[in-house]
Amino acid sequence: MSRSADFCTVRTLTEQLAAPLGPEDQTVQSMPDVSPTKWHRAHTSWFFETFVLQPHAPGYRSFDEHYRMLFNSYYDAVGPKHTRTERGLITRPGVEEVGAYRRHVDAAMLQLLDGPVDATVDGLVELGLHHEQQHQELLVMDIKHVLSCNPLDPAYGPLPWAEPATAAVPAWIDHPGGVVPIGHDDVGFSYDNETPRHEVLLHPHRVAGRLVTAGDWLAFMADGGYERPELWMSDGWHTACAEGWAAPEYWRPSDAGWAVFTLGGVGPVDADSPVVHVSWYEADAYARWAGARLPSEAEWETAAPPPTSGLGDWYGTVWQWTASPYIAYPGFRPSAGAVGEYNGKFMVNQHVLRGSARVTPPGHARRTYRNFFPPH
Amino acid sequence: MSRSADFCTVRTLTEQLAAPLGPEDQTVQSMPDVSPTKWHRAHTSWFFETFVLQPHAPGYRSFDEHYRMLFNSYYDAVGPKHTRTERGLITRPGVEEVGAYRRHVDAAMLQLLDGPVDATVDGLVELGLHHEQQHQELLVMDIKHVLSCNPLDPAYGPLPWAEPATAAVPAWIDHPGGVVPIGHDDVGFSYDNETPRHEVLLHPHRVAGRLVTAGDWLAFMADGGYERPELWMSDGWHTACAEGWAAPEYWRPSDAGWAVFTLGGVGPVDADSPVVHVSWYEADAYARWAGARLPSEAEWETAAPPPTSGLGDWYGTVWQWTASPYIAYPGFRPSAGAVGEYNGKFMVNQHVLRGSARVTPPGHARRTYRNFFPPH
Amino acid sequence: MSRSADFCTVRTLTEQLAAPLGPEDQTVQSMPDVSPTKWHRAHTSWFFETFVLQPHAPGYRSFDEHYRMLFNSYYDAVGPKHTRTERGLITRPGVEEVGAYRRHVDAAMLQLLDGPVDATVDGLVELGLHHEQQHQELLVMDIKHVLSCNPLDPAYGPLPWAEPATAAVPAWIDHPGGVVPIGHDDVGFSYDNETPRHEVLLHPHRVAGRLVTAGDWLAFMADGGYERPELWMSDGWHTACAEGWAAPEYWRPSDAGWAVFTLGGVGPVDADSPVVHVSWYEADAYARWAGARLPSEAEWETAAPPPTSGLGDWYGTVWQWTASPYIAYPGFRPSAGAVGEYNGKFMVNQHVLRGSARVTPPGHARRTYRNFFPPH
Amino acid sequence: MSRSADFCTVRTLTEQLAAPLGPEDQTVQSMPDVSPTKWHRAHTSWFFETFVLQPHAPGYRSFDEHYRMLFNSYYDAVGPKHTRTERGLITRPGVEEVGAYRRHVDAAMLQLLDGPVDATVDGLVELGLHHEQQHQELLVMDIKHVLSCNPLDPAYGPLPWAEPATAAVPAWIDHPGGVVPIGHDDVGFSYDNETPRHEVLLHPHRVAGRLVTAGDWLAFMADGGYERPELWMSDGWHTACAEGWAAPEYWRPSDAGWAVFTLGGVGPVDADSPVVHVSWYEADAYARWAGARLPSEAEWETAAPPPTSGLGDWYGTVWQWTASPYIAYPGFRPSAGAVGEYNGKFMVNQHVLRGSARVTPPGHARRTYRNFFPPH
Repeated sequence: MSRSADFCTVRTLTEQLAAPLGPEDQTVQSMPDVSPTKWHRAHTSWFFETFVLQPHAPGYRSFDEHYRMLFNSYYDAVGPKHTRTERGLITRPGVEEVGAYRRHVDAAMLQLLDGPVDATVDGLVELGLHHEQQHQELLVMDIKHVLSCNPLDPAYGPLPWAEPATAAVPAWIDHPGGVVPIGHDDVGFSYDNETPRHEVLLHPHRVAGRLVTAGDWLAFMADGGYERPELWMSDGWHTACAEGWAAPEYWRPSDAGWAVFTLGGVGPVDADSPVVHVSWYEADAYARWAGARLPSEAEWETAAPPPTSGLGDWYGTVWQWTASPYIAYPGFRPSAGAVGEYNGKFMVNQHVLRGSARVTPPGHARRTYRNFFPPH
Repeated sequence: MSRSADFCTVRTLTEQLAAPLGPEDQTVQSMPDVSPTKWHRAHTSWFFETFVLQPHAPGYRSFDEHYRMLFNSYYDAVGPKHTRTERGLITRPGVEEVGAYRRHVDAAMLQLLDGPVDATVDGLVELGLHHEQQHQELLVMDIKHVLSCNPLDPAYGPLPWAEPATAAVPAWIDHPGGVVPIGHDDVGFSYDNETPRHEVLLHPHRVAGRLVTAGDWLAFMADGGYERPELWMSDGWHTACAEGWAAPEYWRPSDAGWAVFTLGGVGPVDADSPVVHVSWYEADAYARWAGARLPSEAEWETAAPPPTSGLGDWYGTVWQWTASPYIAYPGFRPSAGAVGEYNGKFMVNQHVLRGSARVTPPGHARRTYRNFFPPH
Repeated sequence: MSRSADFCTVRTLTEQLAAPLGPEDQTVQSMPDVSPTKWHRAHTSWFFETFVLQPHAPGYRSFDEHYRMLFNSYYDAVGPKHTRTERGLITRPGVEEVGAYRRHVDAAMLQLLDGPVDATVDGLVELGLHHEQQHQELLVMDIKHVLSCNPLDPAYGPLPWAEPATAAVPAWIDHPGGVVPIGHDDVGFSYDNETPRHEVLLHPHRVAGRLVTAGDWLAFMADGGYERPELWMSDGWHTACAEGWAAPEYWRPSDAGWAVFTLGGVGPVDADSPVVHVSWYEADAYARWAGARLPSEAEWETAAPPPTSGLGDWYGTVWQWTASPYIAYPGFRPSAGAVGEYNGKFMVNQHVLRGSARVTPPGHARRTYRNFFPPH
Repeated sequence: MSRSADFCTVRTLTEQLAAPLGPEDQTVQSMPDVSPTKWHRAHTSWFFETFVLQPHAPGYRSFDEHYRMLFNSYYDAVGPKHTRTERGLITRPGVEEVGAYRRHVDAAMLQLLDGPVDATVDGLVELGLHHEQQHQELLVMDIKHVLSCNPLDPAYGPLPWAEPATAAVPAWIDHPGGVVPIGHDDVGFSYDNETPRHEVLLHPHRVAGRLVTAGDWLAFMADGGYERPELWMSDGWHTACAEGWAAPEYWRPSDAGWAVFTLGGVGPVDADSPVVHVSWYEADAYARWAGARLPSEAEWETAAPPPTSGLGDWYGTVWQWTASPYIAYPGFRPSAGAVGEYNGKFMVNQHVLRGSARVTPPGHARRTYRNFFPPH
């Protein structure tokens, strides 16, 4: 597929994801870590405008000069940025103007891509599309939180892509240990943090062939999982106590047992489906309770088939916590320029997740992909 | 004017005030003390639904049962209420549904008012209209704050009523002291907190015949008004230091001197116009600096002509802080029922303001009116 | 009694109050509103050093120049001061050096008082002694809080003065209303906030002849006093909910009913003794529950016999909340100089208490005395 | 040396460290992470009482039953514990009683050690002594913070042991990479977190042969080290901005350049001495500025000579940050029982430090020792 066609596909999907949401839905920031839908739509356009059009499209005219500051996320090298926690205060530009901004950027991008583009520009466009796919995932996660704050439990609706179909793999996948390579081999796209490919020494271990289910989790809860400090990291235990954790996020007690808020509204917890929305602290405590531990990211990467294999449920259901703190690979060099702020500066106080989630857009998963979140 | 006609007039004005605002503008809560426009529109309708239609209109059907909780403000006796600080999280019902809710309530109210109504119901309708007028004022104050948080400085536009025209009064109005009556005489509408009318003993004093101007305030600032603790109450000084106060709210330094954010956007401070948006702490410090003091509410009420006189600038420009903490008048009895929660339970930690403001809707001012806000 | 003898008596009493406390007890600040015993001992000496000795005792040498900043409380006009919330961080000077500081100041003061002193100086000494008496009361209140934080419930021990003996007065004291004088008549000592004496207009009312007892309070609690929002000011209700109030401060549930932590350790609540350590919010809610209201300070002052009469329990048991916010009397002028910061700058967000408490040192009560505290 | 003699040596050193401190110094907790000297003295005794005497010394009588709760630190398995942040509120038991408590425990311990002890008990005593050595280090670090809060800058005085004497090593120590063993070999004492010994794969690298000096740090500061976000992890940058970092902890600007608060009082910064009291965020930013990176803990352990070699400044000056997040070694098993809470439950959100510090008591350092602190 051409870069142009890719561009259209990815950009259109963002608009499809926003389509079920009214202007009110798209404006609100329900907590500091959430960004408004409208902001995701604008910020992903800002990325192309800032890193591709302004430096590389002669004669390009900005849609609005103020957007440079308004829709910057965290790129300190680009200049001032609007405070993250105040994204929900920006009522204007409204949803319609943001739509117009997207169309303005799309037109200029397609015109640019219609001519010859050098490798640098093409690489930036590719990066921008992967960036937008990440924001598609965030957009869905964030609007889920926004809607969950409404006591009326409104539904978002179905996602515009199919459920993953998976074929069974062994219950446990054994590895004898030894030196193995991990990281991206530079064929095709990757983020800088997946490189360089390098060797690591694994010790003998085995990895589970399936995900932890809600039923497994109910057993953990029934056995006092949320009340036994010996199962928890100290930081996790204090967080769990301070915030009153007693079940995964979005689970709610009901007269008929545990219910769960999803993009489709509220329904009963399904014991057979994988548990989602658990923090690293919870996953770590669960593993300890189960007499196991979380895999390291090298163990995960060594065990997992590629996303296109259809084997196992490594991809498309839930990002999987690993035991690995998120740090640089040996010899890591951030990309040059402002896009080098993309990954490297977050390499502390986070853990790596591998795989991909139900809300990850199709085609975005890779075996070497390193997602990361703080443990809470 | 009939109660029906009154009803139409007041309800229509709310919609006129919301008209310049898009769905995004109407949804956001920019700080805990601010409520979204959409919420003001719904809550004022909720008041009529809850206190008039449900108890007194046989056969009335609620627009949506969930609104009972969603749009309650602070009436504990009515049942659970949605948390005030989370009003900005409610994206649904959206602006269109809130418009439909208003029309639903209006239709039922007009049908009710079309028939004979007893004095109780009529009193509740009258109260509801005054309540809505208060929220009209709040709606404008709140949207001003919302828009001021936007770095693009968007304008709301003109208010749908004229500027007050005022005729001069003496520079100082002297009073020899003595026992005078204050409070409402029960002819026409008043809130419970304006009653009972009673006598107070005034000491000799005089009250200024005009408001403090921005120019006066600039002199106060130039003389170190915000840097001299001896001018301030201790609480005020600590608040001013902690929050870095250096000028009235919405004033901003600019290359061309002080500018100010208004409903019409940003422009230069006009030295001749009355200063607005100052806290009690600031007003009290200013008065001390000027070798004076704030008037008590009894002194204010004794000095002020009625709102219809056109004399002085007592009404229609800015609510005026008094030296009086907001407490009950001797013999005060709150109204019966949930509407009795309207005023009485706020009688601590606040000060009385008198007069009315530029954003107060026409006809809402009274000489005995007791507005109240915390000193910060 | 001569001023010298007064001085010795008051200064000695402070040392007697500190005597049961070890260096560890005297050093700790258990919350921001509490000051260490050691600090009270030093600060009261600092007052004499700063306002009497340095300006008026030729040749006086400071004990330590650093103490000027270290033991200033809130007198902005005197210069920088150590942060109030960090008083508990000062381990040096220790208790012994503070004792030496007191002896140094005492020696210089007695030498000064041995000669002729003009009225200004004498007035400052008198003020300093009343100031020290206030701090004696605070010292005991504060150490009670410190000791109450210890899970071992240590006792302070008995106070070095007798319990008040009181003679009965009528159950209700009626007043027909009318203009009455209140405030201090300038015979003998008073603080500036008790002046000027002036007339107020009372409305007909009656004041209870006895204090509310713990037994009364238990009835209030049994009737849901802490669970019924309609009894409370809105601010009070939110404070009570946020802090989980369910009984007066220092009351603790026990297997044998309510117990209470006192200066003598922990024991059962005595239903017949007056309730103490209740906030204004609680007192106001109690009064509303009892079908009454708190008296205004003018009503209290009009009803109360003088402290020396032995009639009623107006003095020596507990400071009594009034309905009156703490504001300036008409014509109030703060004292000149830094001592003018003593009272006036606190005249907002507080309520007046009248009478005196069990921990008030003998001779410190006056009928016109205006104590004040925030409502929480 | 016998275990008895070891016991006497370690316990005596704690008392020597406390000797320069008065009761006031020993009582205060200057921030939540600091514990009072008195608490350190008591808690280390509690460790022997709880884990050795009560289970293993027949007929042992507790000094005071309340101490079980009062001086527990974080051992959830032992029962309730006093809140960490409130250690500074406990004025009683005082310093004298804590001294008596120590003597009581010492007598019982020496009696126990005088007879035959099995390996379990001996292991617990050994652990208790290493535990007490850790608290000796903390005691000194904590009292430094307490004294630094005093505007009078009081000095603690000299430490009761000599400065380390070090012999030079190469400027850079090269390593060709390959599989190397790290971790403790179980000869002599270690904490559980140093085990099991295992192999890791190193990549080619080199490690600096000397510590970063204050002079190096001044160059970093002069080059905008604290003002350039590109040098910092994102979390570090936000922490640095929020807390206004502009130099290492305890550095203070003075008219004569940078001064520093030390245990000996305040003096000028010595450019030749190693920089101390920098966070991981600062160390990481410095390394990036210097065109280098922090070593991993495996790299450090491979490069460092043993503590007894006298080569290099690996030990006795400052704990050295590594790039390694603190996680479990492969195959890690916590010790059994409550002492198993010692290390394992802190394996998240921290980084490993290696070596030892000026305040580490003699004999406490090991090449495999894993110290850990949060990055701020």
